[in-house]
Amino acid sequence: MTEQKKISRVNRFFRRAALIIGYPIAAVLVLGIIGLTGRYIQTELSSPPVSSEHLEYKQSYLQSVKAAPKSAPNVIVIFFDDLGWGDLSSYGNKVIDTPNIDQVAQEGLLMTDFYSASPVCTPSRAALLTGRYPPRTRTDRHVYFPDDHLVGKLRRMMGWANALPKEEITFAEVLGQAGYQTGMIGKWHLGDSKGYRPNDFGFESWYGVLFSNDMFPLNMYQNETVVIKDERVGSFLANERDEANPLAGKGIDQTELTQLYTDQAVAFLEQKGDRPFMLYLAHSFPHVPHYSSRDFANTSDGGVYGDVVEDLDRSTGQIMAALTRLNLDDNTIVIITSDNGADFNGSPGALRGRKGDIWEGGQRVPMIVRWPSHIAPGSISGEMAMNTDIFPTLLKLAGQELPTDRVIDGKDIASLLTGKANSPHDNVYYFPVMDSLPGAVRDDRFKLLWKTDDVGRGRSHFSRLGSDAENHEIRNLFPKEAELLEKRLGAKRDEFKKTPRGWL
Amino acid sequence: MTEQKKISRVNRFFRRAALIIGYPIAAVLVLGIIGLTGRYIQTELSSPPVSSEHLEYKQSYLQSVKAAPKSAPNVIVIFFDDLGWGDLSSYGNKVIDTPNIDQVAQEGLLMTDFYSASPVCTPSRAALLTGRYPPRTRTDRHVYFPDDHLVGKLRRMMGWANALPKEEITFAEVLGQAGYQTGMIGKWHLGDSKGYRPNDFGFESWYGVLFSNDMFPLNMYQNETVVIKDERVGSFLANERDEANPLAGKGIDQTELTQLYTDQAVAFLEQKGDRPFMLYLAHSFPHVPHYSSRDFANTSDGGVYGDVVEDLDRSTGQIMAALTRLNLDDNTIVIITSDNGADFNGSPGALRGRKGDIWEGGQRVPMIVRWPSHIAPGSISGEMAMNTDIFPTLLKLAGQELPTDRVIDGKDIASLLTGKANSPHDNVYYFPVMDSLPGAVRDDRFKLLWKTDDVGRGRSHFSRLGSDAENHEIRNLFPKEAELLEKRLGAKRDEFKKTPRGWL
Repeated sequence: MTEQKKISRVNRFFRRAALIIGYPIAAVLVLGIIGLTGRYIQTELSSPPVSSEHLEYKQSYLQSVKAAPKSAPNVIVIFFDDLGWGDLSSYGNKVIDTPNIDQVAQEGLLMTDFYSASPVCTPSRAALLTGRYPPRTRTDRHVYFPDDHLVGKLRRMMGWANALPKEEITFAEVLGQAGYQTGMIGKWHLGDSKGYRPNDFGFESWYGVLFSNDMFPLNMYQNETVVIKDERVGSFLANERDEANPLAGKGIDQTELTQLYTDQAVAFLEQKGDRPFMLYLAHSFPHVPHYSSRDFANTSDGGVYGDVVEDLDRSTGQIMAALTRLNLDDNTIVIITSDNGADFNGSPGALRGRKGDIWEGGQRVPMIVRWPSHIAPGSISGEMAMNTDIFPTLLKLAGQELPTDRVIDGKDIASLLTGKANSPHDNVYYFPVMDSLPGAVRDDRFKLLWKTDDVGRGRSHFSRLGSDAENHEIRNLFPKEAELLEKRLGAKRDEFKKTPRGWL
Repeated sequence: MTEQKKISRVNRFFRRAALIIGYPIAAVLVLGIIGLTGRYIQTELSSPPVSSEHLEYKQSYLQSVKAAPKSAPNVIVIFFDDLGWGDLSSYGNKVIDTPNIDQVAQEGLLMTDFYSASPVCTPSRAALLTGRYPPRTRTDRHVYFPDDHLVGKLRRMMGWANALPKEEITFAEVLGQAGYQTGMIGKWHLGDSKGYRPNDFGFESWYGVLFSNDMFPLNMYQNETVVIKDERVGSFLANERDEANPLAGKGIDQTELTQLYTDQAVAFLEQKGDRPFMLYLAHSFPHVPHYSSRDFANTSDGGVYGDVVEDLDRSTGQIMAALTRLNLDDNTIVIITSDNGADFNGSPGALRGRKGDIWEGGQRVPMIVRWPSHIAPGSISGEMAMNTDIFPTLLKLAGQELPTDRVIDGKDIASLLTGKANSPHDNVYYFPVMDSLPGAVRDDRFKLLWKTDDVGRGRSHFSRLGSDAENHEIRNLFPKEAELLEKRLGAKRDEFKKTPRGWL
């Protein structure tokens, strides 16, 4: 064989190899680009899907809402963002001082075993407002992004929701129909387009932001009007999480954010009319980035994070003082809790795991309830409950029936709060961030995780709650109890596979 | 344009696209296969690299070792695998009972701030035996695998070590030269080829396994002889971590493994001669998979994991009883510790993190020392020390000088153990699993992590040790202290970049 022939042989080999490799890749690329473009156009042209049947039900249900009885309490829900189970001094933190929140607990009830319905933001907020587990409200895959953001576009192209469906019913809508003055202050994170903002879900007034304080653009809204515009030239690649990149001068000054909300909340109370009121104060902090107020910077032993939490505590003190000043103490139920467990910088206390996990540290959160006319001071409860319970509880207190076309996962815990009953739950379920099925279940003693990352073994994990902190798998000691929880969780997973939205 | 022409145009477009995509990929593939094959052959033909200069030094150093003084204590090092800081009842575990180990602590010293040099197995063992941080001994990238295993081959092709370099000096070699009878029982995990096993690094006798109990093949050796052969047909894909896949009948019965080691240890003590002795008992448990002894299965409140730890506790009781029976109590120093923090199933106590992490839970481990003639019963120390300190301490007790051609990172802690001095360390350093540079440093109050996964912000983390459990970044409160630790850690990182092996 001549040199020439050898070269042409090698050439032919490479040419054939290149074609064998290149053809399928080229085909996939071309088809992919065509498909994605089509899907993109389709997504841009379409609105979020609506179940018209349940939207119609919602409208007739809301019209059937009766006026609240005279005894119905005023309601304040103070909802922190990423505050961990161990971040308050009343929950054992040794370096962060929260005397005002602690005092609310001393005057009311502190719950040790209260849960958010999700270890992240959006689904937890949907669960609070609707009483439903994350997949029911289409908030089961991480968090919503701006519709214009690449991630928001991708979410919608994937067929995932990026705004709370219109047919969902919030307690704001029901209480509003029942005659309450309904106000929201703070972070929404349940959709950003027109028609999917707080005013569209029952809040007469809203002052706040659409997203987390590390997202872009972070405009401040007063109802439909932008009152502080984010002037940063940013993108989803910009590091909005960096405290060295403050908005001050280009938008919201985050060092003043907690005080801005607090002033609005106090004004809401001062200017309220004669109707009963419901105020939902959803703080942006202690979510990252962390900015403490200038006046109290570097005063907490818990560092900047501690400063931020102590700012939130002072805010709570101002609101409680306003309640007293306005003679509203007695029949106002104040609920203080968090949307999920501690993030990287924050304390899960003695619990395993953090934000994002279905270990206890991801979903167990502080819960303090004060209602002087009904809750004995210094109450402490180890009964389990979840933020899905707020919806049915508030509806009950306002004398309303629950909607009947859908599963409400929460239960009325008014009797539990007032010390007259135990938990109405045999079990609560935990929802992993990127899953549409429950990933864990607990009862009053034990907890079962469906499948874990146990050194690559992918097993379930059955453990004792309490001083064990989920450290030790103990199925061998309690085979029946483990099997029971496994059956319960399996059945619940099947239920969510069949009817994720829980339509009845 | 005719239909025919259109088709041929599309054809030509695809052909060109396929060639443009396929040519570079084909080229990379062909070159990659040639390169990898060459590297593979080169690796198979070559032996692990040796620094002949330091091997020569080692030989002359060992020849210069003097006979140990008559007062030199016997030594027993009991080394657990993956036992967490919170796994013993003496360290606060509420569901696992370890009365025998607790009694050793009551008769001696319990240390709250003792560290393994690594959050995983191989580097920690190398540090224990040599007194040197992981990169010094080329154990800085995860753990060694069998040379025949795909991962072992890949490690060597990457240029990473897969066996302890011959020029490293172990305390077994030094004590042996000083006249000690040196025995090892249990897990080696510092190389598997001939020439790189315990007998080659100073242990006169060895009974045990080369790897972790989830690795394959798990043969039991008595010195160079396989006494229990692993007959499983396995591969690196087989799930050796699964308790449902026991070796019993096809090799070591892991339900008997702890007792096998214990019997060997007691026999070593009973049959020892007149020389002082050093026994290194490196248990395979509580590493996964978890097998409890049949006689005590399902008796611990800590589940199967608890059973396994309680087996280890009974083992310790048998060894202590043998010491007493043989009148060896007084001048035998017994050291009980672990190679790293708690794995998935196990307790880090109140510490953040687990095995694999440079958070405290990854590297802080139980440490109990009993030496009746020198340590007051019931001693407790919060001084920091590390398993690198064992090498210089044992050499000092045996009257030997340290090698002078290399950095020994550990320090003699004999005075600390006997309550006569504080920690000789201003700082200890932490070594991330897949890094060759230290990733964290602590002093007596604070800890600094160089770069963390703080919600994607990649920042350092400066925190208080103690009740804070590394939850809160507090650099704003202690800028000077943070800067000092950052300088120290930066300098140490530079040192490791320049001279990773620490040759002097």
